[in-house]
Amino acid sequence: MLHLIQIMDFWDYYANMAGVVRHTAQRNRVMEVLEAIYSRHAIREYAPETPATETIHSLIKAAIQAPSAMNLQPWAFAVVRGRDRLLSISGRAKGHLLKTMAAGSPLSSLRDRLADPAFDIFYGAPVLIIICATSSEPGASEDCALAAQNLMLAAHSEGLGTCWIGLARPWLNKATAKEELKLPTSYAPVAPIILGYPKGEPEVHPRHVPEVVWIGE
Amino acid sequence: MLHLIQIMDFWDYYANMAGVVRHTAQRNRVMEVLEAIYSRHAIREYAPETPATETIHSLIKAAIQAPSAMNLQPWAFAVVRGRDRLLSISGRAKGHLLKTMAAGSPLSSLRDRLADPAFDIFYGAPVLIIICATSSEPGASEDCALAAQNLMLAAHSEGLGTCWIGLARPWLNKATAKEELKLPTSYAPVAPIILGYPKGEPEVHPRHVPEVVWIGE
Repeated sequence: MLHLIQIMDFWDYYANMAGVVRHTAQRNRVMEVLEAIYSRHAIREYAPETPATETIHSLIKAAIQAPSAMNLQPWAFAVVRGRDRLLSISGRAKGHLLKTMAAGSPLSSLRDRLADPAFDIFYGAPVLIIICATSSEPGASEDCALAAQNLMLAAHSEGLGTCWIGLARPWLNKATAKEELKLPTSYAPVAPIILGYPKGEPEVHPRHVPEVVWIGE
Repeated sequence: MLHLIQIMDFWDYYANMAGVVRHTAQRNRVMEVLEAIYSRHAIREYAPETPATETIHSLIKAAIQAPSAMNLQPWAFAVVRGRDRLLSISGRAKGHLLKTMAAGSPLSSLRDRLADPAFDIFYGAPVLIIICATSSEPGASEDCALAAQNLMLAAHSEGLGTCWIGLARPWLNKATAKEELKLPTSYAPVAPIILGYPKGEPEVHPRHVPEVVWIGE
């Protein structure tokens, strides 16, 4: 009998441990940082559901934990929701790029795509979060990018997909765009990031082996 | 008897689950992504030990998992080791800042500190990793910052401290500095990040509530 009780104690112990595992899986936001860094991929296909406002708030809160030069925290956020609005911005952003594209820019390989009325630069995502630099100090745009990487990793750990849409940046920096998005003219949109629930499997782009120079030892 | 076998099956099952938990804790590099984002703080005091070359390689590998505009992966890395060398760079970077600082720059509040020969801009860290933009395309410096945030989070999850030393950037971008660090003149140092084992507790800087503009719903 004692033997059986001991077995039951072990069972309880392991059942509790297993409970930790199950709880962890259920929380649905537990992901090891290296796993998040390696398994995050740009998402270019989305389900129509809009993530909850509370979730978007939590992603912005994770974003601003990034460091910033002189601790200036030189960032502000615009959250744009609504497919019709995003499609309209996509159309105008494409037109602006086609009009202003420099010859020889890497963008010129996208000319045909940008001219295609069916191409939505926001890939059907229900939300666009724009991280804007609020300061013209050097380094403010890099600070916004640090915040952007936090936001993209946090979203991924919540089961959400993101993609930095650089194609939107030139249009967003036009005075008329800032007016439409109720952004002060002094703000500089840096990181336009689409957000939503992923559909299908993302394309995975392997990384090149980077150049590393070693000085001293 | 069947009953006991069932119990033993459960035991095996839960023992395996518990094994996952134990393995996870032993790996010593398991940190939830949100925990990493929230618990990472700039480290400005270091133990003298130099992190292993293999560890630095793994941090660079985590860094380059960041996304980049048009998948150009426009980054290269310089790893500078050796306290004497870093102190020498610190001295020259301070001199350069004092000579070139614009009136009214937020840096001017640091003038006295920069003039102090005892102030080491690298805070005694044994390693400086410089992430350089290898392309002059717009967005390359932000791509380097995305990689930098990955690197700083990965380092934190390994028990290492980092701090982005913006004060070093102007000097690092001088032609003579690039020559000394064996960097092509076309590269632009963006993110000078010190690395080492933290000593003491970091200063924690609370974040301001950021401005968020909501458009549509």
